[in-house]
Amino acid sequence: MTSSIQQNTPVSLKNVVIDDGFWSQRQANNREHTLPAIKHQMEKTGRVDAWKLDYKQEQGKKDGHTSILAQPLSKVKPHIFWDSDAGKWIEAAAYSLTTHPDAELESYMDSFIDLIASAQQPDGYLNIFFTSVEPQNKFKNLRDWHEFYDAGHLTEAAVAYYEATGKRKLLDVMCRYIDYIDSMFGAEEGKIHGYDGHPEVELALVRLYHATGNQKYLNLSKYFIDERGQQPLFFDQEAIARGEDPKQYWAKTYRYCQAHIPVRQQDMATGHSVRAAYLYSGMADIAAETGDEELKQACLSIWDDLNQHHLYITGGLGPAHANEGFTVPYDLPNETAYAETCAAIALVFWAWRMFKLDPDSKYIDTMERALYNNVLSGVSHEGSHFFYANPLAAFPYITPHGNWSGIVAERDYRRSEWFDCACCPPNLARLVASVGGYIYSTDADTLYVHLYTANHADITVNNRSVKIAQQTEYPWQGQIRLQVDVDQPGRFRLGLRIPGWCRSYTLKVNGQAVTTAATKGYVLIDREWSSGDEIILALDMPVERVLPHPQIRHDVGNIALQRGPVVYCIEEVDNGDNLANVIIPPDARMITTFEPDLFDGVSVINIEGQRAVADWKGGLYQPESVQTITRTPAAIKAIPYAFWANRQPGEMRVWIREN
Amino acid sequence: MTSSIQQNTPVSLKNVVIDDGFWSQRQANNREHTLPAIKHQMEKTGRVDAWKLDYKQEQGKKDGHTSILAQPLSKVKPHIFWDSDAGKWIEAAAYSLTTHPDAELESYMDSFIDLIASAQQPDGYLNIFFTSVEPQNKFKNLRDWHEFYDAGHLTEAAVAYYEATGKRKLLDVMCRYIDYIDSMFGAEEGKIHGYDGHPEVELALVRLYHATGNQKYLNLSKYFIDERGQQPLFFDQEAIARGEDPKQYWAKTYRYCQAHIPVRQQDMATGHSVRAAYLYSGMADIAAETGDEELKQACLSIWDDLNQHHLYITGGLGPAHANEGFTVPYDLPNETAYAETCAAIALVFWAWRMFKLDPDSKYIDTMERALYNNVLSGVSHEGSHFFYANPLAAFPYITPHGNWSGIVAERDYRRSEWFDCACCPPNLARLVASVGGYIYSTDADTLYVHLYTANHADITVNNRSVKIAQQTEYPWQGQIRLQVDVDQPGRFRLGLRIPGWCRSYTLKVNGQAVTTAATKGYVLIDREWSSGDEIILALDMPVERVLPHPQIRHDVGNIALQRGPVVYCIEEVDNGDNLANVIIPPDARMITTFEPDLFDGVSVINIEGQRAVADWKGGLYQPESVQTITRTPAAIKAIPYAFWANRQPGEMRVWIREN
Repeated sequence: MTSSIQQNTPVSLKNVVIDDGFWSQRQANNREHTLPAIKHQMEKTGRVDAWKLDYKQEQGKKDGHTSILAQPLSKVKPHIFWDSDAGKWIEAAAYSLTTHPDAELESYMDSFIDLIASAQQPDGYLNIFFTSVEPQNKFKNLRDWHEFYDAGHLTEAAVAYYEATGKRKLLDVMCRYIDYIDSMFGAEEGKIHGYDGHPEVELALVRLYHATGNQKYLNLSKYFIDERGQQPLFFDQEAIARGEDPKQYWAKTYRYCQAHIPVRQQDMATGHSVRAAYLYSGMADIAAETGDEELKQACLSIWDDLNQHHLYITGGLGPAHANEGFTVPYDLPNETAYAETCAAIALVFWAWRMFKLDPDSKYIDTMERALYNNVLSGVSHEGSHFFYANPLAAFPYITPHGNWSGIVAERDYRRSEWFDCACCPPNLARLVASVGGYIYSTDADTLYVHLYTANHADITVNNRSVKIAQQTEYPWQGQIRLQVDVDQPGRFRLGLRIPGWCRSYTLKVNGQAVTTAATKGYVLIDREWSSGDEIILALDMPVERVLPHPQIRHDVGNIALQRGPVVYCIEEVDNGDNLANVIIPPDARMITTFEPDLFDGVSVINIEGQRAVADWKGGLYQPESVQTITRTPAAIKAIPYAFWANRQPGEMRVWIREN
Repeated sequence: MTSSIQQNTPVSLKNVVIDDGFWSQRQANNREHTLPAIKHQMEKTGRVDAWKLDYKQEQGKKDGHTSILAQPLSKVKPHIFWDSDAGKWIEAAAYSLTTHPDAELESYMDSFIDLIASAQQPDGYLNIFFTSVEPQNKFKNLRDWHEFYDAGHLTEAAVAYYEATGKRKLLDVMCRYIDYIDSMFGAEEGKIHGYDGHPEVELALVRLYHATGNQKYLNLSKYFIDERGQQPLFFDQEAIARGEDPKQYWAKTYRYCQAHIPVRQQDMATGHSVRAAYLYSGMADIAAETGDEELKQACLSIWDDLNQHHLYITGGLGPAHANEGFTVPYDLPNETAYAETCAAIALVFWAWRMFKLDPDSKYIDTMERALYNNVLSGVSHEGSHFFYANPLAAFPYITPHGNWSGIVAERDYRRSEWFDCACCPPNLARLVASVGGYIYSTDADTLYVHLYTANHADITVNNRSVKIAQQTEYPWQGQIRLQVDVDQPGRFRLGLRIPGWCRSYTLKVNGQAVTTAATKGYVLIDREWSSGDEIILALDMPVERVLPHPQIRHDVGNIALQRGPVVYCIEEVDNGDNLANVIIPPDARMITTFEPDLFDGVSVINIEGQRAVADWKGGLYQPESVQTITRTPAAIKAIPYAFWANRQPGEMRVWIREN
């Protein structure tokens, strides 16, 4: 055995049963509320019927070229994103079926897949919008129109459904469509030297390669990644072919879609944040699959830039509404944070692939930060309402987009049942349903434990079958009990992640202290294991007062509260309004309490804080020579950020004044 | 003589010569740079030639209904606002001619007025856009298309030019046009019961009434004000007549144009801030002219709401880009402050009229706050570049509108030479050129001094001719010397404003202390005056540390520095970047110094402040248990806010951390 960590293989969620605790509850809500809510909205908005291609039959060629934004005459006109909604929803259902078989759901999905298959064109092409509405515009504007993005999500759905059920129908459909795309796009003469403005198909193709073993799909993914940003720029050529001036690009710069320079020259997180994180996921995949060092270096540089300059404490990314993406280092506004749910989800995907490329728990630290905070804030605690943007401070009258209609009552920022651009809800559903797939991985001789949550799993490591069971109240408690069960005693390594947030811990195997130092964030326990071996990992989990980097101008002078991976916030419903006047001085006493009846049970922090108070002399401004502000003790209650906005609307803050 | 203050009459700028000091320099820059810069842009952009109505001749009826946004085929298509740009420019030139005769400028203006007059239609109608481009749409969409707004500005120009030169040509043109409007709009059956979406004509009509003595113009103004917001709502009716659904109004609410309810029921500053302040100016005019108590009460309530809830410390108003206007109480973001230059200018107009309606120096306090801060920040110190939005904090890569293209270098926020919607530059020019008209006013027996700046004036009060001369370095020094000159000794009152910012002062007449308490902010010196009488008013002018109202969430924990009426800011060019880490603790020593070579001479504040510093351990977030932030003494320099962004671009802050 080596002392290092080798390239890992994730343990499939098929092998992991989450049966208790935090994620068990999240998955139950996801199954019982989120998936049905999405199903309802998919049907209600026409996203299921659209696969019948009725719009085409109704409209025929009557209206010729129809603007994407124009109203249809009768049937609901499909939108260019709708295929991706279907894909993510099927993928989410597939994961749910993997861990919780449901004949009714499976039967429904089979029928839906039949409908999708029926929409495939004789040549293999498959896209609702461009088949029904603008057939003349197929593959004419990859920059803006998301055709491969749609194909990518349907491909992921096909792989997931195949892995969940063994049913190949959608997989075969997507292989045909991808084969068609492969026949049209590529380096060869006569093919289009292009790629999509919204990356996603790149990572999907790697999954398709793994599911089918067909190297062609890996090659196509690599082609899209290699070609991106090469001169002459495809999006320029494509615009000219449409008779447009490329300089009139609405997003102004190809940074928006990470296509301004070749990806191996990129070293900064830039542009639209969901596009970015999907692309970087695909890059990490290809670098891991091919051993491409230059591509790996680009991934490492961009990762470093994200983590050093652009990441909210909640794991959110992309602060700006204008480009739904990145701006400049340390620009992390709170009230207007865009921090799209999909971007944090995409970050989970990317982080997981970075770990595969460069095994180090720092990637899992970021993944965990996103997962417990910005991802979960994207859904209401019971699972039926969704946030698109996830601001870190809220003032009830102003949306994070800064919109203002003058109508106060309409402007409370609450989660929505659905969105016209509905990318986030099914994205969230697929991640929550598949979280079991992010807990374990293996290399040749080691079983790694990345996430702590109650579960039991069957894993093959070092050619032996190992059962492992976790008992823990994580993230509310730092105590984790793992029990190993093997057919017969045998040697392998168990790698336990020590989270980056943890500054002290104890580890015992069968009561004996293990004092091995962690390697890249993992304590590697190399021993002969027998059934019944018990590991107790006790992570100290105090409330940490977190300071912002001195260049984050929005946060300096404030602290955030974090306990374990969970970032906290204060809400008006618990603390009254005017939260900018809440102060948590350095010596404030803080008591953590588990409240079983709050949102299915969460740990809250009760703080002996202060409030700045003033017998205000009137007007908006008073000189300090006549106006005094004093402090009064105030009981302050903080709740996990992910659970905010689940009670009455009001103010919220993550960053709280320290002075 | 009474002990109270009666309704006042302003002393015309014709009677006031500003010959030295702060406003003399501003007016010189206005004459030598701002007016020529506007002339250049007016010509260059086609705003002069447009009055030839060439666009009509070129386009004829070829393109039928042409969208306002469409590109013309050859000649530059005039915009619906262009008449107002011409109006404000002529008005600014007229004021400049009043105090600084310039035969060349006057000759140019005469020619321009000839051109404008030639564009008047046989029926009296006058508007470039609706004559040249969309004649079929005259008076079809008052809600959105600014026809009366244009008419109002041309009317103000006509009055100003007539008063400056005695030339009636434009005045006669505008009387004809207003007569035409009066024949079309009004309460009488058969007339349109309407008013404009962008108020302005209301105050202009009162000026026209004063210039001509024709009561009809006062009545028309009163009609527009009385009719506004009455049921059935005109903008609904008008939309229906155009075949539109009124509910599809792009601005969503008639609050945007203050037409949601009758004006006498309005008690809050709401909607688009420039529209608001122009409307409120007209309301104050009509209330003062007619003695309408209900209208006066509405003015008082709205004024109170503005000052209690919506005013930036710079005198800016309208924080939101989305509606260019008001949001909710205490919502005063700094980096994204819209705070349009025109809104602060309109506030000066409104405040001045409020004083007439309800003599009290509190109105002049607000007027002075706007004038020395948000108004003057609208123009570069030498006069050739302009701000539309006036944020109270700047981060060099992000515009106040939150725009972000991904192209860092383009995003420094600097003043512009011009704007497509060029309302601010000529508005600023007319106010700076006419500031002499805001210094003095009279009632039957009293001469009031509102603003302190070096000047001499000829004023009639109590039927006697009085010459008064001010010598002062205000706003840089609080010492003001006034000298009175009369034909023969006589009794009248001199009312000297004690600014609201001033907490102690001494006042002497011929060396004798005057200890009379101020009445509504004015010390009324009632005595027999002789030539050579000397008044020395010494206003204590320390640097004040100003606290924000505890509900201004963006500012709490910070202070602003104000000295006299001047609000200060800190800029990166003086203090390095990372201004959020600058701290001015309560006991910080502050020294004011006049720097004669900085921007034609300004007083700066040198502060023995601090900077929060950290040997930062890396990453964006560090727990307080491992990361220390300390303070180090730091020399900090603050400059007047109005003069920011005149050197290299960088960060700026008005509100500075106190802890």
